[in-house]
Amino acid sequence: MITLESVVTDLDRLRAAKPLVTNITNYVVTNSTANALLAVGASPIMTHAVEEVEDLMGFSNALVINLGTVARTYLEAMPVAWAAANKNGVPVVLDPVGAGASRVRTEQPVMMLEKYQPAIIRGNASEIMTLAGESGGAKGVDSTHGADAAEMAARNLAAANKCTVVVSGEVDIVTDGERLVRIHGGSDMMPLVTGLGCTCSALCGAFAGVNPDGFEAAAHAMAVMNAAGAVAASKAQGPGTLQLHLYDTLYVLDAGMIEKNMRLES
Amino acid sequence: MITLESVVTDLDRLRAAKPLVTNITNYVVTNSTANALLAVGASPIMTHAVEEVEDLMGFSNALVINLGTVARTYLEAMPVAWAAANKNGVPVVLDPVGAGASRVRTEQPVMMLEKYQPAIIRGNASEIMTLAGESGGAKGVDSTHGADAAEMAARNLAAANKCTVVVSGEVDIVTDGERLVRIHGGSDMMPLVTGLGCTCSALCGAFAGVNPDGFEAAAHAMAVMNAAGAVAASKAQGPGTLQLHLYDTLYVLDAGMIEKNMRLES
Amino acid sequence: MITLESVVTDLDRLRAAKPLVTNITNYVVTNSTANALLAVGASPIMTHAVEEVEDLMGFSNALVINLGTVARTYLEAMPVAWAAANKNGVPVVLDPVGAGASRVRTEQPVMMLEKYQPAIIRGNASEIMTLAGESGGAKGVDSTHGADAAEMAARNLAAANKCTVVVSGEVDIVTDGERLVRIHGGSDMMPLVTGLGCTCSALCGAFAGVNPDGFEAAAHAMAVMNAAGAVAASKAQGPGTLQLHLYDTLYVLDAGMIEKNMRLES
Repeated sequence: MITLESVVTDLDRLRAAKPLVTNITNYVVTNSTANALLAVGASPIMTHAVEEVEDLMGFSNALVINLGTVARTYLEAMPVAWAAANKNGVPVVLDPVGAGASRVRTEQPVMMLEKYQPAIIRGNASEIMTLAGESGGAKGVDSTHGADAAEMAARNLAAANKCTVVVSGEVDIVTDGERLVRIHGGSDMMPLVTGLGCTCSALCGAFAGVNPDGFEAAAHAMAVMNAAGAVAASKAQGPGTLQLHLYDTLYVLDAGMIEKNMRLES
Repeated sequence: MITLESVVTDLDRLRAAKPLVTNITNYVVTNSTANALLAVGASPIMTHAVEEVEDLMGFSNALVINLGTVARTYLEAMPVAWAAANKNGVPVVLDPVGAGASRVRTEQPVMMLEKYQPAIIRGNASEIMTLAGESGGAKGVDSTHGADAAEMAARNLAAANKCTVVVSGEVDIVTDGERLVRIHGGSDMMPLVTGLGCTCSALCGAFAGVNPDGFEAAAHAMAVMNAAGAVAASKAQGPGTLQLHLYDTLYVLDAGMIEKNMRLES
Repeated sequence: MITLESVVTDLDRLRAAKPLVTNITNYVVTNSTANALLAVGASPIMTHAVEEVEDLMGFSNALVINLGTVARTYLEAMPVAWAAANKNGVPVVLDPVGAGASRVRTEQPVMMLEKYQPAIIRGNASEIMTLAGESGGAKGVDSTHGADAAEMAARNLAAANKCTVVVSGEVDIVTDGERLVRIHGGSDMMPLVTGLGCTCSALCGAFAGVNPDGFEAAAHAMAVMNAAGAVAASKAQGPGTLQLHLYDTLYVLDAGMIEKNMRLES
């Protein structure tokens, strides 16, 4: 059961444990993702060097695979890292950025999901519906619309891959196929800062690094982002200052701020 | 004719249309360029994956090719994307970063200009004069100096390539070889933020995505940058805060702010 | 002898000379490093294109080699650039990011140090102790602990490589094996901004570009970072605003601010 208390407990645990989160992510967000992970209390490693990802999986607490950059050197490192993570019991978060926008962005996550086990998949509605259509029981998806369709796609994708799926949007959805929580908060200015979706995926990795239940980890990460985003937006004059205040807020976020700035709906 | 009204009309159009701007740009500015495009109202895609650029040209409204990073994987994607853009009628903005500083930075844009059609070329005076010398009727360039030389190089380069050329500087010059407008504004602190020239090129792409007249698109983009830069500088304590306020300003910029903070000289 | 006066003299010299600093650095910090170099008064070039690094060494005032990204294309460019720098008398700063964390991160700097001459090596205690153990007279390192061990490792590494070594930490150590200075200042929030260590290395490059004495250059760079970091932290509400204020501070830093915000201990 996801509650304010469970969110705060895991955030405290994260700050104490400082989990090492290895990120193979796109070159647009390496800096902002690393800063968000540091601000919330995690230890980021950013790499796409196939030569070292197996070494890193020997001591990482989580692996985030983000398909925002699909250049060859990036794609080469991802399956090697993912295989090593699965072997070593390191939880993996998959962010299928742009699935549906180009063939390579659709095919690559599908191919990897056929071979490797994710703990959490996070995307927007369009990305999750694309993946569900390609690789996870798309039954019924095409016949529904909007939030309902996204929720059904998320449930199906989660069930088909035995993992947790997060759909980011105005209201975030987190489901493992059976359990489901909707999270309210954030700000409609957040999509105007590049890579905040990627930051959500990275935070999912940080929480997965301290909580082996992927559903709880993902829900706690999204609760923290919703709260921090709402606080930051209340102090911002636009998307530039929003991003900064987001880091500052992640650094000082406490139970009172979380309670006031996000809402869980089971 | 470029006027305050034409600037505001295109900015409104941009915000309504949210043009998709695909950027093959350097890894220094991927984040800041994407944020500027989002703040002004466009939808950025950042990539250098040769595997997907043809797919993306199927639905992009503009392509920005920025030579700031000249590693092989980047150079491989550029001509493929540019050819597809030309085939599909997608306007292309070329930013020849560092032309003249190394052989590869000089040769690559020249080679691409021989094969492909740009809508807009944007650079600083040194870059534009280098390109004009190499690939576009350099007659007379060497015998003039400073702003005049840059203006003549821009006119010649534009005429030779049947496109619009922008020279960024203290006063920005926009010309298609016949029409010419000078734009005043901005701040002398702007060169101390990395990649604001690249941001100008990206905004040229955004405006080219809603206005098929490259001269108008480039002039409107530069007018917006001059106004936003001046507003941002008035609120900044240094180059760090300048960058943030620039995004915030692009997000809220309106006719009154544009009128007060930039000046068109025909 | 490192003094407040010597720091200020070199900072003035840097701002007047605007040294060209070429950086082969990781994709997490390209933007933030370039911004810090611009703010302090230097002219940054960011590249990892093997095709151009020799050209750039023809006119650069310093080269910074940062091992934060160890993908092949980056590793390919580094020795070519370093060889050209040594040939042309361009001072080289090595930042062995993550030495000890993966085999490639440990082996690469060791291999390059066997062939090429650095002016300055900068890392944290763990990285410097790893390098000292692998490539520079590790005698006695294992038998000491904490700050003493790091100091001994730094002295040994500097002596073995005839260069200056900087160990970043709560108190920064700068030594050329004989001379040694400890620098106090900064803020404990600085490690929560990604890449501020990389920024230190880049500033070492900027100062090395105007002062041929590597020990003085490194000490002056670290004094500036300690002062700027302390000023920025006093204005920040968290790591997000800290980063911005750091750029703003580097831009306006003067003798009075340096005197109040850092302390030299010989």
